[in-house]
Amino acid sequence: MFDPLPATRSTLTPFFNPSGVAVIGASADPRKLSHGVLRNCLSHGYRGAVYPVNPRAGEILGLPCYPDIEATPDPVELAVLMVPAAACPAVLEACGRRGLKGAIVISGGFREVGAEGLALEQELLRIAGQYSMRLIGPNCVGTLDAHTGLNTTFIRSMPKPGPIAFVSQSGAICGGILEWTAGKGIGFSRFATLGNAADVTETDLLEELAEDPNTRVIVAYVEAIRAGRRFIDVARRITPHKPILVIKAGRTQAGTRAVSSHTGSLAGEMAAYDAAFTQAGVLRVDTVEELFDHALALAYGPLPRGKRVAVVTNAGGPASLAADALEQAGMAMPPTPQETQALLATFTHPEAQLSNPVDMLGGAEPAQFEQAVAALLASDAFDAVLPILVPQALVDPLAVAEAIARAAGSRYGADAYSTSGKPGSRYGADAYSTSGKPVVACFMGDEVVRQPMALLHQQRIASFIFPEQAARAMGALGRYAEVKGKLGDWAIGELATDSARRAPVTDDRSPFTLPPGPAQLGEAEARPVLAAYGIAQPAAALARSAAEAGRLAAQIGFPVALKIVSPDIFHKSEVGGIALRLEDEAAVQAAFDAMISRVQQRRPGAAIAGALVTQMAPPGHELIVGMRRDPQFGPLLMAGLGGIYVELFKEVAFRVAPFGRAETLAMLDETHAGRLLAGLRGQPPADVDAVADVIERVAQLALDHPQVQEIDVNPLVVYPAGQGALAVDVRMVLG
Amino acid sequence: MFDPLPATRSTLTPFFNPSGVAVIGASADPRKLSHGVLRNCLSHGYRGAVYPVNPRAGEILGLPCYPDIEATPDPVELAVLMVPAAACPAVLEACGRRGLKGAIVISGGFREVGAEGLALEQELLRIAGQYSMRLIGPNCVGTLDAHTGLNTTFIRSMPKPGPIAFVSQSGAICGGILEWTAGKGIGFSRFATLGNAADVTETDLLEELAEDPNTRVIVAYVEAIRAGRRFIDVARRITPHKPILVIKAGRTQAGTRAVSSHTGSLAGEMAAYDAAFTQAGVLRVDTVEELFDHALALAYGPLPRGKRVAVVTNAGGPASLAADALEQAGMAMPPTPQETQALLATFTHPEAQLSNPVDMLGGAEPAQFEQAVAALLASDAFDAVLPILVPQALVDPLAVAEAIARAAGSRYGADAYSTSGKPGSRYGADAYSTSGKPVVACFMGDEVVRQPMALLHQQRIASFIFPEQAARAMGALGRYAEVKGKLGDWAIGELATDSARRAPVTDDRSPFTLPPGPAQLGEAEARPVLAAYGIAQPAAALARSAAEAGRLAAQIGFPVALKIVSPDIFHKSEVGGIALRLEDEAAVQAAFDAMISRVQQRRPGAAIAGALVTQMAPPGHELIVGMRRDPQFGPLLMAGLGGIYVELFKEVAFRVAPFGRAETLAMLDETHAGRLLAGLRGQPPADVDAVADVIERVAQLALDHPQVQEIDVNPLVVYPAGQGALAVDVRMVLG
Repeated sequence: MFDPLPATRSTLTPFFNPSGVAVIGASADPRKLSHGVLRNCLSHGYRGAVYPVNPRAGEILGLPCYPDIEATPDPVELAVLMVPAAACPAVLEACGRRGLKGAIVISGGFREVGAEGLALEQELLRIAGQYSMRLIGPNCVGTLDAHTGLNTTFIRSMPKPGPIAFVSQSGAICGGILEWTAGKGIGFSRFATLGNAADVTETDLLEELAEDPNTRVIVAYVEAIRAGRRFIDVARRITPHKPILVIKAGRTQAGTRAVSSHTGSLAGEMAAYDAAFTQAGVLRVDTVEELFDHALALAYGPLPRGKRVAVVTNAGGPASLAADALEQAGMAMPPTPQETQALLATFTHPEAQLSNPVDMLGGAEPAQFEQAVAALLASDAFDAVLPILVPQALVDPLAVAEAIARAAGSRYGADAYSTSGKPGSRYGADAYSTSGKPVVACFMGDEVVRQPMALLHQQRIASFIFPEQAARAMGALGRYAEVKGKLGDWAIGELATDSARRAPVTDDRSPFTLPPGPAQLGEAEARPVLAAYGIAQPAAALARSAAEAGRLAAQIGFPVALKIVSPDIFHKSEVGGIALRLEDEAAVQAAFDAMISRVQQRRPGAAIAGALVTQMAPPGHELIVGMRRDPQFGPLLMAGLGGIYVELFKEVAFRVAPFGRAETLAMLDETHAGRLLAGLRGQPPADVDAVADVIERVAQLALDHPQVQEIDVNPLVVYPAGQGALAVDVRMVLG
Repeated sequence: MFDPLPATRSTLTPFFNPSGVAVIGASADPRKLSHGVLRNCLSHGYRGAVYPVNPRAGEILGLPCYPDIEATPDPVELAVLMVPAAACPAVLEACGRRGLKGAIVISGGFREVGAEGLALEQELLRIAGQYSMRLIGPNCVGTLDAHTGLNTTFIRSMPKPGPIAFVSQSGAICGGILEWTAGKGIGFSRFATLGNAADVTETDLLEELAEDPNTRVIVAYVEAIRAGRRFIDVARRITPHKPILVIKAGRTQAGTRAVSSHTGSLAGEMAAYDAAFTQAGVLRVDTVEELFDHALALAYGPLPRGKRVAVVTNAGGPASLAADALEQAGMAMPPTPQETQALLATFTHPEAQLSNPVDMLGGAEPAQFEQAVAALLASDAFDAVLPILVPQALVDPLAVAEAIARAAGSRYGADAYSTSGKPGSRYGADAYSTSGKPVVACFMGDEVVRQPMALLHQQRIASFIFPEQAARAMGALGRYAEVKGKLGDWAIGELATDSARRAPVTDDRSPFTLPPGPAQLGEAEARPVLAAYGIAQPAAALARSAAEAGRLAAQIGFPVALKIVSPDIFHKSEVGGIALRLEDEAAVQAAFDAMISRVQQRRPGAAIAGALVTQMAPPGHELIVGMRRDPQFGPLLMAGLGGIYVELFKEVAFRVAPFGRAETLAMLDETHAGRLLAGLRGQPPADVDAVADVIERVAQLALDHPQVQEIDVNPLVVYPAGQGALAVDVRMVLG
């Protein structure tokens, strides 16, 4: 069940709906940005009080100027600071004394300019804390609320009110986005830029926007998330109720950290972000255009109950393109059922194509679009309808738009995202009164489709220029419906976010000693750590001489493997430090001597402790299980096919620990490991539970021991169901 | 070297630049499409004669109407037919007698309506042939040439003259595209819809457009290509000189043909199209928007000499998004060299970020954009520059656009795609006079960037709203430069398009007999076919009894494998028809008896010829090599990692036969097979030449024997360089 967020007024609400706002540093010079901020506060219908504060001005834009914040009358809850960085602490202190609830520091010159600026920023944070004020910025572009009419930015456009909230870690991108979306008729609820995010972070804003009744979809431009685990936990509570769409910039930042394990090299920063987004139910998109295309479709809804889409068109080509894009987006296009075809045949052209896509041919009239969309929506075979119009010389596109809106039904009268703030306006609630199937439209063209598309948007039907755009937006509806369903199924307990509540995955944590400080643990040193967490490994013992090796091999049982043990050697195979399938004592002794001299030759200075004599694991499926500690998100677990697969395909999946069994299994199913373990072509299923146990035990180990930076279990050899899995090699890096 | 196309006037030129055109069936009623065609012929500056032909009208749009084509005066080369289908043959016959060179049949009612229509269409084709007339359509939307001003369509918009030619197999999509591109200021050279393509095909048009001096880029919307091999050969001659961009609709058509081999199941219709496009140097894109984005960038050029892009911006966020998209598009963003950073530091903000991307911060002025773009273009470290502007309150975007155009240099004065028709205007020629580095710009916004973007387009700098769009368009330049370089490197002989000129890949084609009619050949029957083409296989012999199996195994040498031989069993492993690693005669005899009884039990009715005793191939890398005969393109060869890889990953590459060694190696490098064969982590390189030989021999086999429909060689076991490869199992399907 959803854990209700606090009903009391959030500490962030004053940033969007304050009783009064003071613009500190407002200029009378219309060329100054601080003048623009004051003008924006006054120009867009905001009903609270607005006070310019500037000791050197008498009156700006017809308002009396106050010399300082102390002098402003009530009510005032929010200050916007546009004074030099060095002056900010004193001004903020005054705001605190005045009892303000929030401050937006637009001024730059803080952390982004170096140590001195960072000190100033920390001073701001201290003052805000002292007065229990919340702080947005510094070095940001402000906030706006299109429903209250408050706009504290200096951006020239004001979006129209709508259902989309936008949180941006880049201020610079916002002007371009607001201007572009305005041209498309996309409406916003709230808009916030975070700047240096000294106090209020993207996660804080998610919590606030989750509670905002005007916001039906949250959209974020993210460059870096600082408190990764909190982000996952907060977003995970929101996404079953409101979709969160994210574009993450800096995906291809070259990794700078030297890594020594497979996991280290594969589990980069982006793997952590992608895992976190997946676990939190956050939908990631690749382009700014998709961000708003998908937000629009999600804002209008409703969500489809399944993946089956009917396409209806007056032009076959675009319908083909839509079909391709729908399939790529994970949707399906089943054939039109016979009874629906019979119905369509009563009003369409005799040569119309009635399977799916339904091609009514170029002359299709508005009435035919209306009847066809209605018929397809009424069919049990479809979960959604995607009409496509390519304007023809003799058909009025506006009339087709009206016809589609009529067919889509009565729900378009309802005010689905009212400003009343009633609980029913949450996204999860059944805001729509009808059949509840989405219609996403495509009207190809430019000028000629502008008015029809505006009409559709008024009627809350998302519409797009290109068939692929419409298809992908439809895919986003399907994807979110799936995420919502999955997160709903998984109990919160599954997430085990609170380690105190979490039952340990193993009680068998026998004592072991980790060496202090940075170190690399080879197999011989890392084996006891795995053993302490109950992870099965082949029998093994350290031999210091050829004779001892032979003796130990006989005890362990043939065939055995020999592996070099040296604190100076991490990649054994590179120095000839592995000998496999030794069948008798003589072979073991010979291999031992040969290995020692080979390694001494290739690594002259290396200290050699001996060789590990290990039982040869019988053949099975080879997996890799690994962990890298991510600075933002904590232990990042990795799993996938091991051995040559991981070398060649690098096809692995990630999750941020802790997580429950459902996530573990989902992680395996994200790669081909899932299908391999399930049993290919009549092979018996493998021991998936044993694999999941190993993954969760490695996660527990990482959670228990923060000094462990990286773990590679490779290969983990997996046997048929009930026969377990063996960690055949292991390495660790301590920090 | 490029094989020059004929210098004489092409038979298709009259469709775009006729001396005179007759519109047959032109209506006086402005609501009729045939009226629209006549109006379009008259409205866009076409200087030839235009004659309405309609026995029932006196005058239309001020022109005297002619009762029939015989009555029209000279000059007339082209007729546009808009009369009922049944009347078309007689009208076309009259056109032929009148000596016309071409006819566009816009009327529908032919092949697309069934057998009767198909007969009418074939009659048109016959008449056209009889009079040496070329025919576009029937059931098409006509053609236009924005440079001659001829527009034979009824579409309301006329594009402005420009460098892009568009060929469409869908007429319906064209109105939407013309309207949308008009709004973006994208200009066209020629535009042609093919309808049923009874005579003139997309390939014919490629040949015509290759010769059109106004066309710098050819763009095609393709649903199906009928004569696949001719398309490859023609496109392959064009693409080193002019880029061809294709969007292929119907990618996800569910396959309907039952397939029985791995290759059959993987080598679908789309694999054939993708292979054909790759071999022909045709660039495939996924969306209509990309089609024209990339066309624009390619039309303006020039091509980059490498992959290194500098991004310069006034906003960090969009630059990050561009960086991500550039990397995804195969481009690179190396750091700004020290000397260039020093230069940039002389005029940028002290806190500007000078590495790549160069972030000049929000206040960057036009002069700074100009200097920075010039400095980055001048640096040897970069092959291209991508400037990004997010409009800010105090900076004029138009001035920034002008500054970027100035920095991009003097080439913008040159008329790179003149209409003079001089040979120098071909794309391959150095049309540009300068440094020759491309600039692709991003101006985020809507209204505010419209004029700046129009200015950039006038100056032939492609510009886009979103950073990802600009980055992908830049990627298209890089991709085409690579294709051009590669195709230039490969001698035409490499392609072996003319089987008469092609030396056989093997002289060792010993005689063998293929059974007549449809059949499936198991390993025992297919081995001699491979052997005849010199493909190495493990030693093998057919045993009819356990005793014989033991005796043969002793002759072949242990260990051996036993495989069931039955004309009724194609998938041996599914019935327990394979036994591996049999080490002595007793084991072979026991395995033989056990196998026979197991198979008899699982497939009671199957005729069993015995079991094949085969030498066990030593372990090596397992590949799959396959062939499926595609109805449009002919033998489609497949290669990739075999065994469990092909089951799990389905990661394989395709080529249409015939092809040369360079294509064979490129095919291997398209999958991970290339890297595996080259040698992973210090493993010795494998015998790539042996693999290439097998692929080419299988291709030759398919070319020589059209009745062979499918071939699976799986696994092909590959040994270290010089040690060859063994075809360990093989199956064939005959048609």
